[in-house]
Amino acid sequence: MATKHTARLYIDQDLKVGAELLLDGNPGHYLVNVMRRKMGDPVTLFNGRDGDWMAEIVKTGKGRAMVVVRQNIAAQVAEPDLWYLFAPIKKARLDYMVEKATELGVSLIRPVLTDRTNLDRLKEDKIRLSAIEAAEQCERMTVPQVAPLIKLTDLLADWPEDRLIMFCDEDGAGDQNCYPVGRAVEEVNAWQGRPDKWAILIGPEGGFSDAERALIRALPQVVPVTLGPRILRADTAAIAAIALWQSFAGDWQT
Amino acid sequence: MATKHTARLYIDQDLKVGAELLLDGNPGHYLVNVMRRKMGDPVTLFNGRDGDWMAEIVKTGKGRAMVVVRQNIAAQVAEPDLWYLFAPIKKARLDYMVEKATELGVSLIRPVLTDRTNLDRLKEDKIRLSAIEAAEQCERMTVPQVAPLIKLTDLLADWPEDRLIMFCDEDGAGDQNCYPVGRAVEEVNAWQGRPDKWAILIGPEGGFSDAERALIRALPQVVPVTLGPRILRADTAAIAAIALWQSFAGDWQT
Repeated sequence: MATKHTARLYIDQDLKVGAELLLDGNPGHYLVNVMRRKMGDPVTLFNGRDGDWMAEIVKTGKGRAMVVVRQNIAAQVAEPDLWYLFAPIKKARLDYMVEKATELGVSLIRPVLTDRTNLDRLKEDKIRLSAIEAAEQCERMTVPQVAPLIKLTDLLADWPEDRLIMFCDEDGAGDQNCYPVGRAVEEVNAWQGRPDKWAILIGPEGGFSDAERALIRALPQVVPVTLGPRILRADTAAIAAIALWQSFAGDWQT
Repeated sequence: MATKHTARLYIDQDLKVGAELLLDGNPGHYLVNVMRRKMGDPVTLFNGRDGDWMAEIVKTGKGRAMVVVRQNIAAQVAEPDLWYLFAPIKKARLDYMVEKATELGVSLIRPVLTDRTNLDRLKEDKIRLSAIEAAEQCERMTVPQVAPLIKLTDLLADWPEDRLIMFCDEDGAGDQNCYPVGRAVEEVNAWQGRPDKWAILIGPEGGFSDAERALIRALPQVVPVTLGPRILRADTAAIAAIALWQSFAGDWQT
């Protein structure tokens, strides 16, 4: 494990031995003001493309630090291609969800407007920052992309043909086409090979409207699943669904 | 679905047709002051033993209501026997965890003191209230028991012979006896029939100490599992582990 005590930071710059990099903005502030790291201290850097690199702080200033990249300490690894589509929820739970989805390894996070979405405002920048922080801490090598808010109808109208949607249908219990996640993935794999592009779609707290449900269920790429007999909050359902997907179709398998 | 708009309350009293019950304390406050329900309004009641019952409010006062039980609307169902053992975490995340574990269907919640537990205070009453609230909202028919705080060493010294522990070992990656959850449950089922008494043990943020890990791994009832290649926070790990257990050994199966 790289580093429980070495700071780990995402930066959007190329990483190679000897590169001198200025860390300012959020990474600089975090490193110098929050973590209180000093000249000579090591720091782990990643950019989502080149793996993890050990760098050394060679100079610090107010909320900024100059570092020199010393060596590659972990190669970039492939990560599952799973989009997380969700109807935005209350602020505190939203941060929480982005953190969880990032730790659990989704590749893209996209807020979706639905008939019952309770949205006062959505700060994509804030979502991106939460995702970066979570990626830094959980030691994943990429930061999930954050795609802009989109209306559900627009999203579905233009849905890529080769990407499946695991639809967590809270009204699907008793529906004979709605399986538990493991069974659903098994069926898909049996019929379609082992498709590796997926998305997970979770509804808003009040559920999708009937018109929305009909639209979703009519899409051939949609795989409806149930998450057990109890009613889950949207955030619980998301974490459970992502963990199950990782376990049956992602990188948590044997 | 019973009731998106009818209030649903847990009460610790016997439920049968015609019973007149006084709801005061928390349930009375919630019903009258928070939900603002009035005479004639229906309310769903459950006590963890007798299923869901429809009752009618026949009188309200300050933070209290008299109700008459009208009819049984759902029979009690059996629930999985899964204990959730965790090292207490920061307050906000603790409430969150209790809510999540309840929604996901654990039967008992027990905080455990470990070498690295960061505990200032623990209010068991508060945990119990969070569990009741979550049970009311997710429409499960029981409220998980809340067992008192116990030291890990004491817990393990007296561990019941017939209950397995799914141990989420954050240092277990690469350990050849440490499988993903599905594989681990499969192995257990193959060797031991289908044991139905389980516990899930999640460590504190800093992980278990080496001495603790050794103690845990030495117990024959312990089944070590991994939760994928990324580092999960204790709360993420708990939700993921419970969802996976439900999916492989609990009531989320086909």
